[in-house]
Amino acid sequence: MLALTILGNNSAVPAFDRHPTSQVITHNGNNYLIDCGEGTQIQLLRYKVKRSKISHIFISHLHGDHYFGLIGLLNSLSLLGHTQPITLFAPSPLKEIIDIQLKVSDTTLNFELHFRPIESAATLVETASIRINCFPTDHRIPCFGFSFEEKRIPRKLLPEKAKAAGIPAAYYERLVMGEDYQTKSGEIISVDSVTEPTPPGPKYAYCADTRYNESILEHIKGFDLIYHESTYLHALAERAQERFHSTSIQAATLAEKAGVKKLLLGHFSSKYASLEEFQKEARTVFPNTELALEGLCYPIR
Amino acid sequence: MLALTILGNNSAVPAFDRHPTSQVITHNGNNYLIDCGEGTQIQLLRYKVKRSKISHIFISHLHGDHYFGLIGLLNSLSLLGHTQPITLFAPSPLKEIIDIQLKVSDTTLNFELHFRPIESAATLVETASIRINCFPTDHRIPCFGFSFEEKRIPRKLLPEKAKAAGIPAAYYERLVMGEDYQTKSGEIISVDSVTEPTPPGPKYAYCADTRYNESILEHIKGFDLIYHESTYLHALAERAQERFHSTSIQAATLAEKAGVKKLLLGHFSSKYASLEEFQKEARTVFPNTELALEGLCYPIR
Repeated sequence: MLALTILGNNSAVPAFDRHPTSQVITHNGNNYLIDCGEGTQIQLLRYKVKRSKISHIFISHLHGDHYFGLIGLLNSLSLLGHTQPITLFAPSPLKEIIDIQLKVSDTTLNFELHFRPIESAATLVETASIRINCFPTDHRIPCFGFSFEEKRIPRKLLPEKAKAAGIPAAYYERLVMGEDYQTKSGEIISVDSVTEPTPPGPKYAYCADTRYNESILEHIKGFDLIYHESTYLHALAERAQERFHSTSIQAATLAEKAGVKKLLLGHFSSKYASLEEFQKEARTVFPNTELALEGLCYPIR
Repeated sequence: MLALTILGNNSAVPAFDRHPTSQVITHNGNNYLIDCGEGTQIQLLRYKVKRSKISHIFISHLHGDHYFGLIGLLNSLSLLGHTQPITLFAPSPLKEIIDIQLKVSDTTLNFELHFRPIESAATLVETASIRINCFPTDHRIPCFGFSFEEKRIPRKLLPEKAKAAGIPAAYYERLVMGEDYQTKSGEIISVDSVTEPTPPGPKYAYCADTRYNESILEHIKGFDLIYHESTYLHALAERAQERFHSTSIQAATLAEKAGVKKLLLGHFSSKYASLEEFQKEARTVFPNTELALEGLCYPIR
């Protein structure tokens, strides 16, 4: 199972006890950190997300409200004796920013930091159990969304049927990979009779900062959950367009067109003290919309 | 009057709801910000210190827990429409760190930022009402303390006596500068009879990160209040020495030798959940010691 924890749901300037963007995907004991606004390390502490389990960090773009907390987090992890390598995916100039800050403080991190620049749509991580892709969004500077897909074993074993058919347990691994079984007497036992197809694993996408742009659709089609920014209410659609941001209605329209199951709204402008109206507006277009609230954990399927 | 508000009193890693170093001196409607650890802009909001009144920022050294919050604060001030110039005193490499972060985000600040590198003991600011000096401390990388001295008008006018002596109000400005008054008939009215000497204004020093080092004494002699780091309790005096930090007893010893009126302890290591012992230890050497607590405002005289 994937689970998403929101650490910060506000845009540029912190306000109303809302913090700049950061969220974490938990999967199989790994924490995948997405964006790292100022104060993220404190939010991780507050919401008891284990910093030591962070294996990968993904920075969508180099506006400060998405990365100013990164250097502090890396520094603290090092001081706390973290030793596991961390892989950092981000637009390339971030490397120089980190390097210069480590240099002036005469700091060597206690762990290996593998920097991987992102430049275009690509698969960033692929293991037996997860695939993480990035895709470009439509923002003032280069910006990327990230999608997380849990990979399920191709077929689900029906152990009682396999046992009744006399298939040895050692062969089960090949069954779930889709192979038929041949008995000693030459009889073929179809894989279909002892396994069943596994539904695809849960899928989540973080759509980062963006104008309304349907080029994103292909990367999030049919997803279980997407997080889409909604910096403004729809009355400010013009301002959203000028500033390369989206409105509640636009986020909901994209979710609707992509046929996703659920939409989370975030990246709210500090001009809004209350957020209720965002949910109300979006639900007129896409009913299964919720606000991304700090500290809440959203299981993905 | 000077007043000091503590925004962060912890060392390197935030813990126990204590934040990295930052504090602000308020004087005549100006806010002078000293150090700016991560989250300072949020602490300013929490404790209702007006960000818009920040005219000068002083960064003691380039360990992250003293400046990682600066770029976020500058960015937010700009987004909030701040227009007054800000003068920033800091070790010289900070300029490049700020410039590169503004560049990658394609940001032009909405206000003038005047960068002034600090390299040795010097007077940084001198106006009719305040003098701000810096002095080197003994740390692993170049590090500076800052002293704030309110300048008082040289003499205090005794308005009733001046009036009774028939001195015109237009002359009062010269009286307080120490000039006698001569009446039309040639009589000399001594300045001593219509004014009295003003006691020196309040003095505060932020002693930054440092080992115990008596070279600091000359910069803080007789001050009303000093803030001295006390990263460790005295049992860890050896570790303090190795890491260029001080203990409670060392801070108190310096305060005692400098003949200051009051000592505030801060920059506590995250290994200590409770701080009481710091105060207890320091008071065995220097009784008028208090803990620097976040959110508290300490009037200086």
